[in-house]
Amino acid sequence: MIVVMKPDATMTQIEHMAEHITGLGLTPQVIHGKHQTVIAALGEERQGLLEALEPGEGVEKVLPIMAPYKRASSELKKERTVVSTRDLVVGGGRIAMIAGPCSVESEEQIVSIAKTLRALGATGLRGGAFKPRTSPYSFQGHKEDGLKMLAAARAETGLAIVTEVMAPEHVPMVAEYADVLQIGARNMQNYQLLQAVGDSGKPALLKRGMSATVEEFLLAAEYILDRGNPNVMLCERGIRTFEDHTRFTLPLATVPYLNEKSHLPVVVDPSHGTGKSRLVAPMARAAVAAGADALILEVHDDPEHAMSDGAQSITPATFSQLVEQCRRVAAAVDRSV
Amino acid sequence: MIVVMKPDATMTQIEHMAEHITGLGLTPQVIHGKHQTVIAALGEERQGLLEALEPGEGVEKVLPIMAPYKRASSELKKERTVVSTRDLVVGGGRIAMIAGPCSVESEEQIVSIAKTLRALGATGLRGGAFKPRTSPYSFQGHKEDGLKMLAAARAETGLAIVTEVMAPEHVPMVAEYADVLQIGARNMQNYQLLQAVGDSGKPALLKRGMSATVEEFLLAAEYILDRGNPNVMLCERGIRTFEDHTRFTLPLATVPYLNEKSHLPVVVDPSHGTGKSRLVAPMARAAVAAGADALILEVHDDPEHAMSDGAQSITPATFSQLVEQCRRVAAAVDRSV
Amino acid sequence: MIVVMKPDATMTQIEHMAEHITGLGLTPQVIHGKHQTVIAALGEERQGLLEALEPGEGVEKVLPIMAPYKRASSELKKERTVVSTRDLVVGGGRIAMIAGPCSVESEEQIVSIAKTLRALGATGLRGGAFKPRTSPYSFQGHKEDGLKMLAAARAETGLAIVTEVMAPEHVPMVAEYADVLQIGARNMQNYQLLQAVGDSGKPALLKRGMSATVEEFLLAAEYILDRGNPNVMLCERGIRTFEDHTRFTLPLATVPYLNEKSHLPVVVDPSHGTGKSRLVAPMARAAVAAGADALILEVHDDPEHAMSDGAQSITPATFSQLVEQCRRVAAAVDRSV
Amino acid sequence: MIVVMKPDATMTQIEHMAEHITGLGLTPQVIHGKHQTVIAALGEERQGLLEALEPGEGVEKVLPIMAPYKRASSELKKERTVVSTRDLVVGGGRIAMIAGPCSVESEEQIVSIAKTLRALGATGLRGGAFKPRTSPYSFQGHKEDGLKMLAAARAETGLAIVTEVMAPEHVPMVAEYADVLQIGARNMQNYQLLQAVGDSGKPALLKRGMSATVEEFLLAAEYILDRGNPNVMLCERGIRTFEDHTRFTLPLATVPYLNEKSHLPVVVDPSHGTGKSRLVAPMARAAVAAGADALILEVHDDPEHAMSDGAQSITPATFSQLVEQCRRVAAAVDRSV
Repeated sequence: MIVVMKPDATMTQIEHMAEHITGLGLTPQVIHGKHQTVIAALGEERQGLLEALEPGEGVEKVLPIMAPYKRASSELKKERTVVSTRDLVVGGGRIAMIAGPCSVESEEQIVSIAKTLRALGATGLRGGAFKPRTSPYSFQGHKEDGLKMLAAARAETGLAIVTEVMAPEHVPMVAEYADVLQIGARNMQNYQLLQAVGDSGKPALLKRGMSATVEEFLLAAEYILDRGNPNVMLCERGIRTFEDHTRFTLPLATVPYLNEKSHLPVVVDPSHGTGKSRLVAPMARAAVAAGADALILEVHDDPEHAMSDGAQSITPATFSQLVEQCRRVAAAVDRSV
Repeated sequence: MIVVMKPDATMTQIEHMAEHITGLGLTPQVIHGKHQTVIAALGEERQGLLEALEPGEGVEKVLPIMAPYKRASSELKKERTVVSTRDLVVGGGRIAMIAGPCSVESEEQIVSIAKTLRALGATGLRGGAFKPRTSPYSFQGHKEDGLKMLAAARAETGLAIVTEVMAPEHVPMVAEYADVLQIGARNMQNYQLLQAVGDSGKPALLKRGMSATVEEFLLAAEYILDRGNPNVMLCERGIRTFEDHTRFTLPLATVPYLNEKSHLPVVVDPSHGTGKSRLVAPMARAAVAAGADALILEVHDDPEHAMSDGAQSITPATFSQLVEQCRRVAAAVDRSV
Repeated sequence: MIVVMKPDATMTQIEHMAEHITGLGLTPQVIHGKHQTVIAALGEERQGLLEALEPGEGVEKVLPIMAPYKRASSELKKERTVVSTRDLVVGGGRIAMIAGPCSVESEEQIVSIAKTLRALGATGLRGGAFKPRTSPYSFQGHKEDGLKMLAAARAETGLAIVTEVMAPEHVPMVAEYADVLQIGARNMQNYQLLQAVGDSGKPALLKRGMSATVEEFLLAAEYILDRGNPNVMLCERGIRTFEDHTRFTLPLATVPYLNEKSHLPVVVDPSHGTGKSRLVAPMARAAVAAGADALILEVHDDPEHAMSDGAQSITPATFSQLVEQCRRVAAAVDRSV
Repeated sequence: MIVVMKPDATMTQIEHMAEHITGLGLTPQVIHGKHQTVIAALGEERQGLLEALEPGEGVEKVLPIMAPYKRASSELKKERTVVSTRDLVVGGGRIAMIAGPCSVESEEQIVSIAKTLRALGATGLRGGAFKPRTSPYSFQGHKEDGLKMLAAARAETGLAIVTEVMAPEHVPMVAEYADVLQIGARNMQNYQLLQAVGDSGKPALLKRGMSATVEEFLLAAEYILDRGNPNVMLCERGIRTFEDHTRFTLPLATVPYLNEKSHLPVVVDPSHGTGKSRLVAPMARAAVAAGADALILEVHDDPEHAMSDGAQSITPATFSQLVEQCRRVAAAVDRSV
């Protein structure tokens, strides 16, 4: 920590802060600059220090130095994490395609689309059984029945099932059917849920909160990792900004940034990230070019009659072209699809 | 709903959309403009319609007309809601002061500060027993022991207890001790939690998510109201923007806007809304001038040694001045403190 | 400056940076922490240093310590600036009211509204002769004719004229008619314009850019001050965020923040800050409660037929009530209107 | 325009609005819905209508239907624009590389780097002679001397010169030396400058303002096009959001969106868009995959000693790799570099 004192801080205030730093188990090193004094607080930069230092008398600001995440950091674990379940492998040379409808609507629908997607190159099947909806009056998903439909689709196709879990008490039930537990953007800081998913040991796909900083995103992953579950995928799905021509703003620079700071694989969701079906394929290609390890995509046989998110769903025909385009871009960055 | 067709939409596409609208139980009214055709879809504007209409062929965009919240709307209930528990009354002519430390640290601490705050004019005591923390390595609260400490403070002072509940399965336990269940900003769209709080029937203080639109905020309230719990307070606590000189940006225009659109009382949190203790009093005064029904404030005897949020906590001495200042501003807008 | 080296920075890289710092005329002080090395670079923290230090090998980040603005800072000038021209005095105990239509539409219109506003307590008259418009097809203002109409209104009422100047080459002409040169939000970083206004010596009302940080705002003021013109007013007019129920988000915490960091007076524009006439009065009251020195308001006799910004214009009747409300709030914070 | 009346609007108010619409030269069509009345205002959707309709009594909101830009729209001009000057061709099958230092520092520097860049595949040379700087104390560029240095570099290499012009009165001088006039992000709504660049007839590279919507961006282009200058390139350079790990957030979905809505070629600036040299190459690849027509990149021989923007400048060696990577990605999307 670097404690920056105000230009008019008194010697008494400076000495008081130095003692306060010592009291917190750190070693203060006072540096008198031309205009201001700064105090380096040396030692383990644990959580809570910032908050303990900031309110001091004469303090202008406190600058943390170390990243607060540990287990997610590429500094502690140099080897890149590969998350693998059934044929779905996220991380490594091959880019995975996770696809499916927003909501599981019926067994017939999900089995049918699963077969199509498998044939087109997907190794993961997404589909919501529990749906977090902005309004209490919207369709909330088929719940456990939906999970059974997903399991039926897996039985037919071998696709790994990726589905959202919305509450800690649902984790055991969802884990019984799913191969990957998805934590939605709205729940990125639902800590009980993160811990329950951590405890389950199941692969987790953690979506970035729509206004979470990358540091907060990695700290949310830390909650899962800290429970002894190493199988975490980070999913960029767009952030909320002033832009109004897309549903969210998809900041692809997080892909190479996360690849540098963390060993966890990175998934990109261009469906939610744009909210417009026509923008999905170009952003899928861009994500692959930027270094994404997997894509998660909303695909629906008949977007106009989808029970949710029709506007951002692509058809199987578009998905087929998208996979082919991504295959070519992947080859251009020495990877494959 | 207004469906705007693309300038080059064909007559077939326009007819198809009109039929699709009819199929959804609405009445289409086609309006041929100079450059574009728009179709008004008349009838109940229920959830899911937007999503059903948007993906249609030849559709440029769909414009919803009605607000999607119902029970929270001042159109349906003209009379303003007053939430009342013990001496804490939120709504009406008197502005309530809810104050206390960020975290409950010890029984001695919380009883002592509660006595001070009561004497200075507070009618509600805030204090976290369950703490949502960005990092798994931060202090997470004393949990049920913390709730008991709060109950002890209430026994001594009569202050109504306002404390956060973080998971649906904790609702019964927290409801046993607390007078008001607080739903934190990170959990504004944790729908299981909203429903559980709704089912509890306890007064709820719902904090706005840091990137939630006002419409999403009111829809989150709708989840509680829809369970038959009318005692909801809306709390503006700041949004995430590009500004970096404050922790969040506190958009006070939401106060008169919510007062117009909703009958629910509005609480403002200038502590989280600014993150800086020196800005709390001016923003508290501004909130009162803008029409807030209550303030919720972090007050700590010794901010430098607070276990969390020291930088934004004010001292009892500052709180005392703040109350006096707000009393004068309240009088200027024909209210009292 | 504090240069934070990466955890795996080599001794050679650390030594190289220390030499680089010396080469820049600063004194390096190397601090070896438990996990990372930081180097304090002591001396005058002039512009350009950050950019010179950041690209160094092994550098993780560079943390500036001092605020980059000087002349705008309350550290260098403790006495608060009062900007005064005719009866318009901004700063000090009395809160000034600057009011008028968005655009000057005709001499009759501007003279008539000016008389009304003067009678209701305004000391400044706003009105656009040069209008920056998002679209080239919108009304762009009456230009010099508009300035003459403003001068006529001043001749009748004595109100100080506040009007926007959009280009450096227009400064002499606008300065001939106006008492205060307004720099619009879109031009906050039009440096030639800032310098030309600085050179004119005329009082300047500088509007915050809609996505400018407070630091950038103060640096824009610095451009004017640096030309020897001390008469600068800082105007908060709202920032661009994801919020969509108001035109902009009006972050009133900038008022007390600027009051602390700078000696320059602070003006608030609740008309642009909200974009909705019904929200103007509550936010005007809130601005006064937060410590604003003046308000600038769009008032129009007939908003429905205004040539621009009708939706956010209030009528003279509403203005009259607003002034009375602000007078009461001002008294509550020991000021007057 | 669609005028949405409030649920409690009276028949008198509805009739008044219908007359007001007629008075504006449009044809009103009143649609009585179940809960609300809406009035379609048919006719030419010219600027100013929104503002004329919004303040009406009983009006809840006004929804525009048509895009306000015309000349920039792909609806009016189906054929894609190609901007071509010397060997720099932007638009069409080949992706152009515009590269160079942030600032022109000396003739020796700019000639040397120009030769290197030409050899590595660039066809445009960027370099600032006039530098817009946040602080008045930063290096502001060599001005006309800098332009002469750029011309010398062109004489040696044939590269087309792309350089920023900051004020209308500088346009003739800059146009004398430059091949492309760049309008910086801070000046995107400096309308005098846009018009002056339009009048010059020179190819223009218009950077998106850091908080401009895409609609505002296209309307800024409209200012140039409206002066009879068709040679406009749209440059996405990142927007301001809450993200703090990059300097700006680079929203690549604007590339396919602009490609759909406009016929103008799209340039991407991954240097400013990220602010970090390590992120430039991945985002350059992503931009090509998303459909960009050109890249503009900051390249410096010795970023550590650059006079500005060192942290985001890449070396010629990195540029060389980036060009090769982009060449492969371009081939994957059936284009070339």
